[in-house]
Amino acid sequence: MAVADTRVAESLADRISFDANGLVAAVAQQHDTGEVLMLAWMNRQSVVETLTTGRVTYWSRSRQALWRKGESSGHVQTLVELRLDCDGDALLLLVDQTGPACHTNRRSCFYRAARDGEFKEIAEPIA
Amino acid sequence: MAVADTRVAESLADRISFDANGLVAAVAQQHDTGEVLMLAWMNRQSVVETLTTGRVTYWSRSRQALWRKGESSGHVQTLVELRLDCDGDALLLLVDQTGPACHTNRRSCFYRAARDGEFKEIAEPIA
Repeated sequence: MAVADTRVAESLADRISFDANGLVAAVAQQHDTGEVLMLAWMNRQSVVETLTTGRVTYWSRSRQALWRKGESSGHVQTLVELRLDCDGDALLLLVDQTGPACHTNRRSCFYRAARDGEFKEIAEPIA
Repeated sequence: MAVADTRVAESLADRISFDANGLVAAVAQQHDTGEVLMLAWMNRQSVVETLTTGRVTYWSRSRQALWRKGESSGHVQTLVELRLDCDGDALLLLVDQTGPACHTNRRSCFYRAARDGEFKEIAEPIA
């Protein structure tokens, strides 16, 4: 996508209903394969930064800091399109993920599936 | 999927990290097309009910009650597979969605896309 200027990004962020902690849940999906990669959180600043840079930035609840995805690992997410749900309180990020999205080096964070009564690992680390 | 008995479902639910409100975020994805349909919330009871019945049940934060998806609309979600993320605090539900997932009668709740500086509706109601 074309990156937005700050004014436009702020105007888009105005449409999002952030929760009492100032956060919104964001689902990242690989734009071409449809694979759901991860679920993370964004605050207003991370939404604006994502829209103005074209690189996905989340809010780390554990570190209480902006989390520029891939900044240390190189496993960046390039934004393809940002979508908003009916209630305005969840985001779907269509992205182009470089390498693994998960900190375990798996492509997707959702690598455990309930099968035969237990959670089984269905994907291996790729990096 | 085969439905689980209550003991197995409870054991799977033990692996999930529910938040301070007893909830976990759940992303519903159409199992064959990959379309992300919605993001909603589950508590422990809704997870167990989903696994034991094979029909997706959420927790409605606004109504503070179990939300058996499609109970009134008929737009049920049949569970195909439940997946857990690396941190144990988000779920991916692969489902077979009957009709629209969204209360606006669109297939997906994520029907607004940030394009040309505004959110544009990219899907029409289908029912």
